[in-house]
Amino acid sequence: MINQSAMQQLEQALGKEKLVTAKEDLLVLGYDSTPGLHSLPDVVVYPTSTEDVVKIVDVARDHNLPLTPRGSATGLSGGSIPVHGGIVICLNKMNRILEIDEENLTATCEPGVVTLDLFNAVAEKGLFYPPDPGSQKISTLAGNVMEDAGGLRGLKYGVTRDYVMALTCVLADGSLISTGGKSVKDVAGYAFKDLLVGSEGTLGIITQITVKLIPPPQTKQTFLAYFDNIRTAGEAVSKIIAAKIIPSTMEIMDKATINCVEDYVGIGLPRQMAALLLIEVDGHPAVVAEEADALKAILEEVKAAEVHQAKDAQDAMKLAEARRTALSALARVSPTTLLEDATVPRSKLADTFTLIEQLTEKYQLTVGTFGHAGDGNLHPTVLCDERNEDEMKRAHAFYDELYEQVLAWGGTVSGEHGIGIAKKGYLAKQIGPGGVAVMRRIKSAFDPQGIMNPGKIFISEQE
Amino acid sequence: MINQSAMQQLEQALGKEKLVTAKEDLLVLGYDSTPGLHSLPDVVVYPTSTEDVVKIVDVARDHNLPLTPRGSATGLSGGSIPVHGGIVICLNKMNRILEIDEENLTATCEPGVVTLDLFNAVAEKGLFYPPDPGSQKISTLAGNVMEDAGGLRGLKYGVTRDYVMALTCVLADGSLISTGGKSVKDVAGYAFKDLLVGSEGTLGIITQITVKLIPPPQTKQTFLAYFDNIRTAGEAVSKIIAAKIIPSTMEIMDKATINCVEDYVGIGLPRQMAALLLIEVDGHPAVVAEEADALKAILEEVKAAEVHQAKDAQDAMKLAEARRTALSALARVSPTTLLEDATVPRSKLADTFTLIEQLTEKYQLTVGTFGHAGDGNLHPTVLCDERNEDEMKRAHAFYDELYEQVLAWGGTVSGEHGIGIAKKGYLAKQIGPGGVAVMRRIKSAFDPQGIMNPGKIFISEQE
Repeated sequence: MINQSAMQQLEQALGKEKLVTAKEDLLVLGYDSTPGLHSLPDVVVYPTSTEDVVKIVDVARDHNLPLTPRGSATGLSGGSIPVHGGIVICLNKMNRILEIDEENLTATCEPGVVTLDLFNAVAEKGLFYPPDPGSQKISTLAGNVMEDAGGLRGLKYGVTRDYVMALTCVLADGSLISTGGKSVKDVAGYAFKDLLVGSEGTLGIITQITVKLIPPPQTKQTFLAYFDNIRTAGEAVSKIIAAKIIPSTMEIMDKATINCVEDYVGIGLPRQMAALLLIEVDGHPAVVAEEADALKAILEEVKAAEVHQAKDAQDAMKLAEARRTALSALARVSPTTLLEDATVPRSKLADTFTLIEQLTEKYQLTVGTFGHAGDGNLHPTVLCDERNEDEMKRAHAFYDELYEQVLAWGGTVSGEHGIGIAKKGYLAKQIGPGGVAVMRRIKSAFDPQGIMNPGKIFISEQE
Repeated sequence: MINQSAMQQLEQALGKEKLVTAKEDLLVLGYDSTPGLHSLPDVVVYPTSTEDVVKIVDVARDHNLPLTPRGSATGLSGGSIPVHGGIVICLNKMNRILEIDEENLTATCEPGVVTLDLFNAVAEKGLFYPPDPGSQKISTLAGNVMEDAGGLRGLKYGVTRDYVMALTCVLADGSLISTGGKSVKDVAGYAFKDLLVGSEGTLGIITQITVKLIPPPQTKQTFLAYFDNIRTAGEAVSKIIAAKIIPSTMEIMDKATINCVEDYVGIGLPRQMAALLLIEVDGHPAVVAEEADALKAILEEVKAAEVHQAKDAQDAMKLAEARRTALSALARVSPTTLLEDATVPRSKLADTFTLIEQLTEKYQLTVGTFGHAGDGNLHPTVLCDERNEDEMKRAHAFYDELYEQVLAWGGTVSGEHGIGIAKKGYLAKQIGPGGVAVMRRIKSAFDPQGIMNPGKIFISEQE
């Protein structure tokens, strides 16, 4: 619990107007988008400058208070939940795009810039910022960096990490480090920047981000293919990659998800189908035309039940809508939506679908699976009710067994959502005690007192 | 100095045949490719398995001996020089390509695989490993990873870091960590893999590497353009990027380099020209044709003095030969070749050329500049004689002044060669005391005893 002296120090440093302390306001700031997780902060602060952030870190350090950074809290692993109370530092008001550098193809932003705002701002200048997490309409850039967010375009264009060129960060001791720059190559010393990406707020608070921009694709072509059997969809994915076609998007939804989406938005999806693939190829018109032909040939060869090709941009958006709606559609079906983030080498995709079907049956659950098929990154989602203890037990047993096999196949427990609170146990299994030990030592190197987003990533003795 | 007990332990663990101890053999193993640097190891060991590497690390730790990893020692910053003697671990005999996985588009290799051997092996299967450092004919993959090597294709295809998917590494405590995998997305815990890339052997010894492969470009087109003025060449580079053309290669050589190359290989380069640009565009034939036309228009617009377009693959190789020969050609002119690795945001390229000319004049030196213009990564090379004390002083003053401005422009002291021994002072200037402090704490987290490649990267109290 924060004491009065710490609170006074915060007020003096920042002014009362940047602090939220009323219980009814704090209540809504103790969530992110992970179901079933909540914890009350003692105070939420809204810095408007790097100097403010340094002052807040100083107070946290002086009073040994947990410091949890957040933006829009769209995270899906509990990373921005203040598990031990203390100070939540909300970076949403530091939301200016500071520069779009058309000569060096970079954009420099404050941490709270909304992902889609950046996309739109650079698009106006004829440039392209590819990372497009599902929450891009409200998610912030610093959140994307801290979780290394993926998105629908990850297959061809990579994830957030691939676009971060420079970071400015306030460390636990109040010092500011700047790492990286606008040079496209930089091997001067350890790769701090690369270590900070995906560190989930446990090593420092980001105050500035420079990202790489690229020329946008000239055109794209969108396909929606339906399958009688989900394994066939998995095989189609493998065959497309083996044919050396790298679509910008190759997304999957299973039957349960198709039906939830149809219930929700009623756009005429065929409810009897076992799976759909949303595929987009983009680039130069000649390349897109050739890849579209090759795609159609492969979809025919594997005997896709139906293949729809978008007639125009509006039609393409309609085809993509089903996939963009998947999570919301599943979330409204049951009180609790347990969304996971299993990722396997692409060659194991079809086997993973089969396994999910077997486990769904074994544990008598309702599971909708969707995700980034091209990346081997699936979101098997258990639709359940957290008040039903037995069902929750079965849900956890389902995930335990799934992840055991995913790890045996050389996969990972998180492709893009991070570890946060929700997956600490799985991480320990993946990287082993040696890996955890090295992580702990790195954490101490940055934050000996352990004030930066404590309770995240690392499993504690009690857990 | 190694004692007898340590030597016996090494012999017992590995067998005599894996050890080199004769002074005449050790002498040649104390160099890398950085001029003026040499240091004698006490013993050189050639492990043939991960188990061997663990045993060697155990001996080094037990006897507190410096452990310096090396491959072919083509490094250009002294990273593999055993400055404090001790054990050199030469990984060249662990040189098997363990797997080329055509389904997941990955290759898994031992650390000592030669870069070009990997390129050729995957090319046979219709795949492409893009990183092509200048030394690719003999450089090893682990060396490339430890220095995050670049190459001529970096502009479009990125550097070694962009292709590393998984690493297995022996840490100082003898434990083995595996980080990353064949999944294209992985955000489970801190990014060890990304921290290890570019860590120059100071955090652990790599024993296995999995790299990403991509489909090869279908075709390419090669241009050689000459300029009366080197600033014009810099402007051409900026205009090409601004036109949203990303060539696979965009390399520069100045007049001094042109003349050295012509002296060396006599291929008819026009000696009076101020600069040449070697430009390659690759990809789909339709894209290449369009980009080639756009390139020619830009080169005409900026008034390039001459533009040659390769007629066929053989002709393209001939055009590229001058650039591939640059370093060797410069190196034979004078007893000492001080090669630097300054990198600036692309928009500062033309200014950097002007600055190099001014400083060359001011310090009365012979300087040849070549490098990866498209990346803003230049290798200004002072041709001098290390026995001439006054000249060496002027050379160092030249670099000091150059780097001061490069850093002021937001550039970096190393684009692709690393810090090693040669650039420790410059690194400290770039990242500041705060950055150095964090690096030291990370180093201690991995290697508390400080046995892993000591003397590298970090400036000591005495320096």
